[in-house]
Amino acid sequence: MQRRDAGFQSVREWDNANFLHPWEGMETLGQNDRTFTESGEGIYVTTETGRRLIDGPGGMWCVQLGYGNAEIADAMARQAREMAYFSPFNNASSVSARLAHEIAQRSPGDLNHVFFTTGGSTAVDSALRFVHFRNNVLGRPEKKIVISRHKAYHGSTYLAASVSGKERDKSWLDQAPGLAHFLPDVNPYRRPAGMSIDAFLDEKVADLENAIRAIGADKVAAFIAEPILASGGVIVPPKGYHRRCLEVCRKHDVLYISDEVVTGFGRLGHWFASEEVFDIVPDIITCAKGMTSGYVPMGACIISDRLIADVAGGNAKGATFSNGYTYSGHPVSAAAALKTIEIIEREGILEHVRKVTPLFQERMHAMRSLPIVGDTRGMGLVGCIECVTETAGTDPLATDRALGALIDTRCQELGLILRPIINMCVFSPPLVISESEIEQMFDIMEQGIRLAADDFAREGAA
Amino acid sequence: MQRRDAGFQSVREWDNANFLHPWEGMETLGQNDRTFTESGEGIYVTTETGRRLIDGPGGMWCVQLGYGNAEIADAMARQAREMAYFSPFNNASSVSARLAHEIAQRSPGDLNHVFFTTGGSTAVDSALRFVHFRNNVLGRPEKKIVISRHKAYHGSTYLAASVSGKERDKSWLDQAPGLAHFLPDVNPYRRPAGMSIDAFLDEKVADLENAIRAIGADKVAAFIAEPILASGGVIVPPKGYHRRCLEVCRKHDVLYISDEVVTGFGRLGHWFASEEVFDIVPDIITCAKGMTSGYVPMGACIISDRLIADVAGGNAKGATFSNGYTYSGHPVSAAAALKTIEIIEREGILEHVRKVTPLFQERMHAMRSLPIVGDTRGMGLVGCIECVTETAGTDPLATDRALGALIDTRCQELGLILRPIINMCVFSPPLVISESEIEQMFDIMEQGIRLAADDFAREGAA
Repeated sequence: MQRRDAGFQSVREWDNANFLHPWEGMETLGQNDRTFTESGEGIYVTTETGRRLIDGPGGMWCVQLGYGNAEIADAMARQAREMAYFSPFNNASSVSARLAHEIAQRSPGDLNHVFFTTGGSTAVDSALRFVHFRNNVLGRPEKKIVISRHKAYHGSTYLAASVSGKERDKSWLDQAPGLAHFLPDVNPYRRPAGMSIDAFLDEKVADLENAIRAIGADKVAAFIAEPILASGGVIVPPKGYHRRCLEVCRKHDVLYISDEVVTGFGRLGHWFASEEVFDIVPDIITCAKGMTSGYVPMGACIISDRLIADVAGGNAKGATFSNGYTYSGHPVSAAAALKTIEIIEREGILEHVRKVTPLFQERMHAMRSLPIVGDTRGMGLVGCIECVTETAGTDPLATDRALGALIDTRCQELGLILRPIINMCVFSPPLVISESEIEQMFDIMEQGIRLAADDFAREGAA
Repeated sequence: MQRRDAGFQSVREWDNANFLHPWEGMETLGQNDRTFTESGEGIYVTTETGRRLIDGPGGMWCVQLGYGNAEIADAMARQAREMAYFSPFNNASSVSARLAHEIAQRSPGDLNHVFFTTGGSTAVDSALRFVHFRNNVLGRPEKKIVISRHKAYHGSTYLAASVSGKERDKSWLDQAPGLAHFLPDVNPYRRPAGMSIDAFLDEKVADLENAIRAIGADKVAAFIAEPILASGGVIVPPKGYHRRCLEVCRKHDVLYISDEVVTGFGRLGHWFASEEVFDIVPDIITCAKGMTSGYVPMGACIISDRLIADVAGGNAKGATFSNGYTYSGHPVSAAAALKTIEIIEREGILEHVRKVTPLFQERMHAMRSLPIVGDTRGMGLVGCIECVTETAGTDPLATDRALGALIDTRCQELGLILRPIINMCVFSPPLVISESEIEQMFDIMEQGIRLAADDFAREGAA
């Protein structure tokens, strides 16, 4: 599709021969024609052929401050030169202690204990291991089952994947048996015909309480939920859902883990969405991605004072929380995160997100008028356009994939990286996106979807 | 113990109040007096009170090229400015493809497929998930049990911890049930009185084969082993152990995973120790730590062509390896790793390690003459001095810990961070350590252990 120069050919060969990518489709391993994103500035990336494209996914929902931010790069280099590493097992470092403090200041309620990890998966893994630990120390080792939801994504360690609810991800990989229970889809778009949103909300909350009762509250340790199910397709539960689920959890002594890996650090216009958007103070928040603007790996789970008090000091029974990583609280990652927080505040990025959100959401919802758009949904600077076809093919998944691929190709030709999740165009551009860039992004997307719809009508299903 | 300035007091308070450290002892949470390592140069770190100390553990077995390396810092900053992030799910990046190629070039045999992660724990987690994946695709989903060893350490995700064999780490945390089987200690120092090393070796190899036979080869997926059990106390199995274990594995169609998180990237004077030191080409190698010289989080598992061929192309059955991380192959981490490889080569660091190893090991073994030293062991630039007491206290663990703490305090007073693992002084200084610095390190250690022995004789057990 794109022009190749000879010098680059070997890089592409190395990528195919030596770099096993996440979610690699094994059938086509070694034959991929991936786009190389080689440089970037603001919301734009430049490919190996010199094409400048808007980065719709914002990296992977993470490049909050956009590409080419010299301030973050300099802060990382300064820290690497001064003190590139400290062992969090044995010692401490002021930059990391300071970051823990700054995060605690911005997290809701009494969530003041920051356990650093290397990304979202390890944040969830550590949060769940802390839940195990606490219930073991409290003398109720049978209270371990985690309730999650269909289409939830919580990461890709064995444990984090075990509480994720995207069925296709599980088909060839193992999950920890008997550890998780999944509630049905909370997507209002998928509610039964004729059911009101209020009735659907009642049903979804009842799903949680019924599950706790059926399993037994003495066996259920926690409920884990993304405020918005992100890679599941930007599913926004009905208003009031989280608040009512938290009440159910409290009633049954079940912890509420709010997985803010995507929604944290400004995506919805706030440091964290749990309290300011959804009116809940959970027991644990997990975060990653945006915390360093994606410039360097880092994640964290933030644990409430109340939970810690249950297992600390006189309640500790001599226990050690034997969990953690060589790179927990890495000073270079901490320096990038501190600089990200500083810039977000100085430049008023949270306010900016709240200001441009109406335009963003309005342009997105306007896409409903396109013939192949079935649903549009989103919040803050995250959105999803779900495309549907009327073709009742023999393989609906293949048909959906083919449609998504056509949209992706058309948008990239027009200047936008979109990378639909099957048939769902999901986007979360850098938070620094301006109003005119939002217009530009949706102009391209609209045209791309129209052209792809024409292609699809012509070519039919794969 | 150390002078505090008022300005620093708040940082310490933040560390205690907000930073939950790995392996946190919960009883004393919030009351720690950790040393802050604030800057560094070469093998030295400088604390918050301005004291300059040799870093015995080399961070956490990871700062191969020492502190303050401006070249690595600059390479990271350059990459962060140019292209701070790419999504490895959707796109590619030349710096990361190049790193995959450079690693494949240096890894033994046909280990050419690099799956990047964010550290050692996720490298092991991903390696094991790949083993699950492969056996599922091969249609033998019951072949999943992993054989590990007593005192092995393979990381701290739920899955990696489940194959780790350090008993005390498990007391308050859950492990995946029925997934791992542990072989007895392979430490020659702990062999039965009167048994020869050769007989001990035969027994240890038989332990593996007996376990495979008892469980059933149709149920055993893999054997995972550090070439040297690092945090378990630098346990060096008898010569020939790995080679013979590999033969047993091959005979029973059991995969051999060599966990080189500690031994990789120069610690034993080679890129990887598996083939060049231990004469084995395993099926999967896991690595992390030294690969970026600890300057930024990164890990990888390197998978053989043969294993990949079993599940790729026409053998794939349409499967996707649904595993991976937002930060897999992070370009800034890749830039740090490429620069680390370049410097190791340009400066002849592998040759340097091999050259100074005899002095290092000789000084270490000379410590056996000290009264409280029970055993000394090591290889390359990693060593362990195991201290023992004759006191038959009521709580041997507390006694051992007290002795270790005394040694740690004395060494730090004299200019060396040691941080014994209970009663075992384990050290792995930066690989750039010079011969005179090796002399200095062991001079301090010798004096510190002597003084601590006196303290201990005076104070007795805790």
